[in-house]
Amino acid sequence: MTFVYDFEQGSKDQKDLLGGKGANLAEMTVLGLPVPPGFTITTEACRAFLEQGKEPDGLAEEVSAHLAALEQKMGKRLGDPEDPLLVSVRSGAKFSMPGMMETVLNVGLNDRSVQGLAAVAGGDERFAFDSYRRLLQMFGSTVLGLEASVFHEALDGLKADRGAKNDLDLGVEDLRELVATYKQLIHDHTGRDFPQEPREQLDMAVLAVFESWNTERAVLYRRQERIPGDLGTAVNVCSMVFGNGGQDSGTGVAFTRDPASGAQGVYGDYLQNAQGEDVVAGIRNTVPLADLEGIDKASYDELLGIMATLEGHYRDLCDIEFTIEHGKLWMLQTRVGKRTAEAAFRIACQLVDQGLIDEDEAVSRVTGAQLAQLMFPRFDAGSERVLIAKGMNASPGAAVGKAVFDSSTAVEWAERGEDVILVRRETNPDDLRGMVAAKGILTSRGGKTSHAAVVARGMGRTCVCGADSLDVDVKGTKMTAADATVISEGDMISIDGTTGEVFAGRVPVRDSLVVRHFEGDERAEDDHLVLAVERLMKHADHRRRLGVRANADTPEDAARARRFGAEGIGLCRTEHMFLGDRKALVEDLIVAGSTDEQEAALSALLPMQRDDFVGILKAMDGLPVTIRLIDPPLHEFLPDYTELSVSVALEDERGNRDSKHHKLLDAVKKLHEQNPMLGLRGVRLGIVIPGLFSMQARAILEAASALIKQGMDPQPEIMIPLVATVQELELVKADIIRVAGDVEDETGVKLKFKVGTMIELPRAVMAATEIAEQAEFFSFGTNDLTQMTWGFSRDDVEASFFGTYLDKGIFGVSPFESLDREGVGALVRLAVEKGRAARPDLHLGVCGEHGGDPDSIHFFDEVGLDYVSCSPFRVPVARLEAGRSAADAISDTA
Amino acid sequence: MTFVYDFEQGSKDQKDLLGGKGANLAEMTVLGLPVPPGFTITTEACRAFLEQGKEPDGLAEEVSAHLAALEQKMGKRLGDPEDPLLVSVRSGAKFSMPGMMETVLNVGLNDRSVQGLAAVAGGDERFAFDSYRRLLQMFGSTVLGLEASVFHEALDGLKADRGAKNDLDLGVEDLRELVATYKQLIHDHTGRDFPQEPREQLDMAVLAVFESWNTERAVLYRRQERIPGDLGTAVNVCSMVFGNGGQDSGTGVAFTRDPASGAQGVYGDYLQNAQGEDVVAGIRNTVPLADLEGIDKASYDELLGIMATLEGHYRDLCDIEFTIEHGKLWMLQTRVGKRTAEAAFRIACQLVDQGLIDEDEAVSRVTGAQLAQLMFPRFDAGSERVLIAKGMNASPGAAVGKAVFDSSTAVEWAERGEDVILVRRETNPDDLRGMVAAKGILTSRGGKTSHAAVVARGMGRTCVCGADSLDVDVKGTKMTAADATVISEGDMISIDGTTGEVFAGRVPVRDSLVVRHFEGDERAEDDHLVLAVERLMKHADHRRRLGVRANADTPEDAARARRFGAEGIGLCRTEHMFLGDRKALVEDLIVAGSTDEQEAALSALLPMQRDDFVGILKAMDGLPVTIRLIDPPLHEFLPDYTELSVSVALEDERGNRDSKHHKLLDAVKKLHEQNPMLGLRGVRLGIVIPGLFSMQARAILEAASALIKQGMDPQPEIMIPLVATVQELELVKADIIRVAGDVEDETGVKLKFKVGTMIELPRAVMAATEIAEQAEFFSFGTNDLTQMTWGFSRDDVEASFFGTYLDKGIFGVSPFESLDREGVGALVRLAVEKGRAARPDLHLGVCGEHGGDPDSIHFFDEVGLDYVSCSPFRVPVARLEAGRSAADAISDTA
Repeated sequence: MTFVYDFEQGSKDQKDLLGGKGANLAEMTVLGLPVPPGFTITTEACRAFLEQGKEPDGLAEEVSAHLAALEQKMGKRLGDPEDPLLVSVRSGAKFSMPGMMETVLNVGLNDRSVQGLAAVAGGDERFAFDSYRRLLQMFGSTVLGLEASVFHEALDGLKADRGAKNDLDLGVEDLRELVATYKQLIHDHTGRDFPQEPREQLDMAVLAVFESWNTERAVLYRRQERIPGDLGTAVNVCSMVFGNGGQDSGTGVAFTRDPASGAQGVYGDYLQNAQGEDVVAGIRNTVPLADLEGIDKASYDELLGIMATLEGHYRDLCDIEFTIEHGKLWMLQTRVGKRTAEAAFRIACQLVDQGLIDEDEAVSRVTGAQLAQLMFPRFDAGSERVLIAKGMNASPGAAVGKAVFDSSTAVEWAERGEDVILVRRETNPDDLRGMVAAKGILTSRGGKTSHAAVVARGMGRTCVCGADSLDVDVKGTKMTAADATVISEGDMISIDGTTGEVFAGRVPVRDSLVVRHFEGDERAEDDHLVLAVERLMKHADHRRRLGVRANADTPEDAARARRFGAEGIGLCRTEHMFLGDRKALVEDLIVAGSTDEQEAALSALLPMQRDDFVGILKAMDGLPVTIRLIDPPLHEFLPDYTELSVSVALEDERGNRDSKHHKLLDAVKKLHEQNPMLGLRGVRLGIVIPGLFSMQARAILEAASALIKQGMDPQPEIMIPLVATVQELELVKADIIRVAGDVEDETGVKLKFKVGTMIELPRAVMAATEIAEQAEFFSFGTNDLTQMTWGFSRDDVEASFFGTYLDKGIFGVSPFESLDREGVGALVRLAVEKGRAARPDLHLGVCGEHGGDPDSIHFFDEVGLDYVSCSPFRVPVARLEAGRSAADAISDTA
Repeated sequence: MTFVYDFEQGSKDQKDLLGGKGANLAEMTVLGLPVPPGFTITTEACRAFLEQGKEPDGLAEEVSAHLAALEQKMGKRLGDPEDPLLVSVRSGAKFSMPGMMETVLNVGLNDRSVQGLAAVAGGDERFAFDSYRRLLQMFGSTVLGLEASVFHEALDGLKADRGAKNDLDLGVEDLRELVATYKQLIHDHTGRDFPQEPREQLDMAVLAVFESWNTERAVLYRRQERIPGDLGTAVNVCSMVFGNGGQDSGTGVAFTRDPASGAQGVYGDYLQNAQGEDVVAGIRNTVPLADLEGIDKASYDELLGIMATLEGHYRDLCDIEFTIEHGKLWMLQTRVGKRTAEAAFRIACQLVDQGLIDEDEAVSRVTGAQLAQLMFPRFDAGSERVLIAKGMNASPGAAVGKAVFDSSTAVEWAERGEDVILVRRETNPDDLRGMVAAKGILTSRGGKTSHAAVVARGMGRTCVCGADSLDVDVKGTKMTAADATVISEGDMISIDGTTGEVFAGRVPVRDSLVVRHFEGDERAEDDHLVLAVERLMKHADHRRRLGVRANADTPEDAARARRFGAEGIGLCRTEHMFLGDRKALVEDLIVAGSTDEQEAALSALLPMQRDDFVGILKAMDGLPVTIRLIDPPLHEFLPDYTELSVSVALEDERGNRDSKHHKLLDAVKKLHEQNPMLGLRGVRLGIVIPGLFSMQARAILEAASALIKQGMDPQPEIMIPLVATVQELELVKADIIRVAGDVEDETGVKLKFKVGTMIELPRAVMAATEIAEQAEFFSFGTNDLTQMTWGFSRDDVEASFFGTYLDKGIFGVSPFESLDREGVGALVRLAVEKGRAARPDLHLGVCGEHGGDPDSIHFFDEVGLDYVSCSPFRVPVARLEAGRSAADAISDTA
């Protein structure tokens, strides 16, 4: 095993072995770019060190050999008292990682070589001692473990003593004194002297980098980001070049194109007579990179040439760190640069046009998250605003309207044309109409997976939730901010769902051109960004294997989903159809004392349900519409048990005994469940309440029948929720088949429909083979499957322990946001295998919220689902990610 | 494929092919016993018929061939007008199954052969027409599908008309008329005549048996009993013999030994001049079988010889049906006979003594369910009793005591030496002390898996639950039965947990000798039953691979479990230790506003917890004790949210505002969860509340340390509940290891303990490999695992839909009673494989209620767990079943 590679020996594809920084240094070296010579100690050496608890055998010898070669190349010896070779020691893991030791510069300096450095720098003792004190400071804090503040305090003390404003005001004698002070501090804190031997400095710095892999912060970061703990870091040892040797020297950063817009040109900053850390410290202002042309045209031209080489070579925007030492340009680092969402789309298309990448690669260069960013309206960047609170960024976008504190007011005001923001402590299903009517939703309680957040994301409504510094007084129709600002009903507020900010008053909003384009607004078509998005979406659609459907419960949502590119509805929930005006009928159904009363309520609901389905099937004419029979526990349609108990008790106490309320309370009490999520719901309702599911099936099939008569092509798929065992499905399916026969007989129309099931219980996963014998399709309900697999309920856990779990790195991300591949994902994979074993053409989809999550979409593609279904607003995101996943798969097998 | 076998061609081991009845008829025939000749049409023929929807090719020809052979053997032709061969047609599946067509006798009779039958019966026309009308009746109702009542009404009408009291009073002309009436009825109901052609009768009867496999009742029964739906039934065609041809004829049943006690001797009944169905109809009284010696000594002696042969051959108690036709003995059926629990144990030992079976076989002949029956006290069979209600048999036994309606009264009265029965509408954790104090528990609500039922079974307390005809008035300290009987506090009642019956007054109780023996009562040792139980238990212990531990939370339970043979504690719950006097401290802990207050509460709890663990570890000295850190959601220690809301609202209304109650309500509200089962509990509590788990770990380890100092050998195993991911376990385990180091330092005692986890979430199953890297043992919490896998909560579902599900055969048995092998069991198996892949010596147990369920125990043995843990009273049952499972495994591989 080789532990050390010269920069000449590596390439950019060796990030696993050399880390990101080392691989790119090697790549530039091999390209013939001016990189200061050096070598990289591999991640394997680090892993061996961590496993064995000591420096692995052979490492010291290899370092010696590469160091000797470096010395020969540079014509200097490390720390030579006459003319010292100095090196930087930098960590460089595969993934960049906060918390790890980063850099020690000027290794090789000691009490003697500092004089040599001064001599070769033309007697510049100040420069030499400044370099030495920097080494002591960095080595002391990062290698020897002293608090950085120990050095800062000494420096500040000295400056105060000398009346110096900044470091440059200190003279050579001051720095000499500072060096002595630093050495004393190191001795006091560690009990030993700063190592004077240059090679010992180097070895200690290397091991310190290795050890920093396991600092608490690095471990926590890896846990949160799900980076494996056993990768280890590489160490880059690079000969020093100095940008602070005079006016013919300097340091800078450059981008090969504009990271904000993607436009080609010269972007970056330059600082004359300075080192990188001075730029960070902000001692002097940088100048635009273009100004370098006037300062040092030769270096400038060389740099532009190198930038073109790098972009052509990396076939992407690169960012670059460079130093000029006495007119000689040195490349210190390069990497593929970060960029804005807009730039990402535009750059990808430009690179295709330049012939640098193909369209598959272009699609893989942009992300669904970036597209989502481009789809939300945003507050105008330059405008004034008054921040009054900050909550969680639950559903992105920018919304402005009058604050209202209850759903009826929201509906009423919206109907007369006002923009409103619905403000609640928390929301529940009763607030649905208000949420639909509002431009945005603001709550003071609940996390990113609270009712408000989930429903808002589903509808594409802007939402800020859990803004707990706001005191929301629903009865008093006002809220009070922490700074005592009071917002009353009708006052204008603005909420930013992308940042979680809440502003008093109206903040100007910019529309999303991309959405206007998806909505069919032709005026948006000529925009550069829209053109880029359109082009990559087209290619993604062309590439993707995975279908994309939408979750939609109304004809309006269905129509929008279709405009956004949905190829059907993957989840049409029917419970929302039982709210509003129909709530009284549903109450009758539940409170019904006799079968007759139940049947009467069902008969009254039938024509309404039929109309619902006619609307939706019409909007999706010719495309499949998966309709889920009613799922939630019945008491969701009744008043809250505790609230009703209190109000009935108070009525009684006041002598206003109301027997109707008592009857209702009895019903609520009877239906009250300790754990409604684990209670009488889904298929269980269908089996226990005779006629409920058949009513729904009849409504669907009568709707389909009517549309067929009108010459349309409805494609209903009836979906049974919460199935655990094939026996449940058998019973319900037999009933649906019977109803279908009846409807065909009555209408004389031949029906075409499917019957399938949700897979949302681990039990259903284990029984998937048997279930697939009865089900024509599976739709994975990954919300419930996540709840059951982990044994926690979305409604309860966010507030109580998700925060702690995310902080401690038990989750990298909430398993409700992104599919937990190891647990829930493994069950999905198992169900796919078991289901297809029984029915090879079993149609498979997913309709949980994960259907719109980029990472999860790649997983669903990988395990072979046929489609994902997500909220209409996520449909373009899902199309893009499905395309990216297919493009990745093609390049993987290429 | 051969579809038909003569009785000479089969054997008792061919039940799959020939059905139970056919296989045993063949076995007797081959043994040379006098079986009327006949043949069996196989289950394969039935399956072919059901698959193809028509008689399979070749069947008719085979039947013809076997019928011809039978005719030749008997010297008669089927339905010959002169001297007809008559046959019976009987179904016979592998498992006996209600709802299937059972028997048509006298096939072959028609308008002409009835005369022939009379002629050969010495001109006995009455006998011949009686036989004919029986054929019409049976054929009409079972083959042609008429309601049986149609014939009964005609018969009753005729008898009324003739003034006849019973069938025997009808003369030959009456029967002739009845035959005509029956034929007319058949014509009227089916539109065609009764088939006169004998072969057509036979073929129709055979197909009717095939079709009866799929009657609704048979399908439902199979679903409930989990009998595969595709086995099919065989059909037995047997030449008729008649026991009703005179005084030298008759019919009877015999047992080779007493099915009640197992004693050897002559047991059975005989009815002279009669057929089997007359015995059932109870027209005349039977005589004891021994009387046959005086009636027909030759047949009697022959029968006794045959009984000895059969018992020797089947090596078990057999029951037998026989007929004597004019002094000639015929065997119509035999099978291994049912017996009481007591007889099962005694017979098994006797057969070993007779050298007929070995001890492995003897152990496999008795069941844990039978042992459990023998362990409960029972009401004296002969005594008088007044039944006032019937509920569910939730926890077996017989309990007598004074009715009390709240826990404090139960405790108070029990302390002064009274026997009490705790009566509640339903119980909750607050009732625990009352349940411990009571002899039995009676509730008017909740099913077999309600809190009352589960806890009672765990404690071995008699419990009747869900006696919903009782109106329990807790405030009024009385209950009212459906017949208006009022039981007030202090009135004596008796409850039978084995039958679910509730009696007013005192019913005398018989103790279980077996329990007295287990408890060490030497006076019980000479009893025959006790000797048999002891002998088989000893062999079971010798054979079993699976260890048996007990679930016990107190030193008393631990000591009893040890007397009952437990080899350690598999589940010591710590939440019960937080009730009673300590509740105030726990409330402080939960309501605590600051870390200081929390720490104070924890410090106060520490010495109490330590004492708890000292007691339990002492009682189990030298054996492992698995202690589960606190699991339930915290609000279980606080008042009910709704009740408290109402009482606080009423206080406010009355102007008695109590700020302490408001503060408590705020805390309850804050901790209130929609789905507490899926909320902040288990390891989540340990991670979110700093110091809670470490306090418990410290208490355990300090207790162990103190006992080691006293020279004992405590073996604590610390178990973390509700782990979903290895990160949780890592965090908690690190904390425990740290505490252990501290305790070792403080006490100077070297500790020996294990840290492991429960596997009770599907997520933990999927991650079992990673978890096993941190866990030294897994204990399957199959209660929670069942809840999460199926997505239903034990507390909620029994009342709302379990009844319907059991009725409809969706479950054969509640998955909380017996492990659901296909779903939950498959997950257990997966976790075993995954866990052992990471740690081959991973110790595996189960501590859910299934640990005491016989069928589940066999499963746990099969998948390779190391032990089961169950309530102390189930320990002997588990030992026996573990032995049976091992004996089965040995005989399977032999």
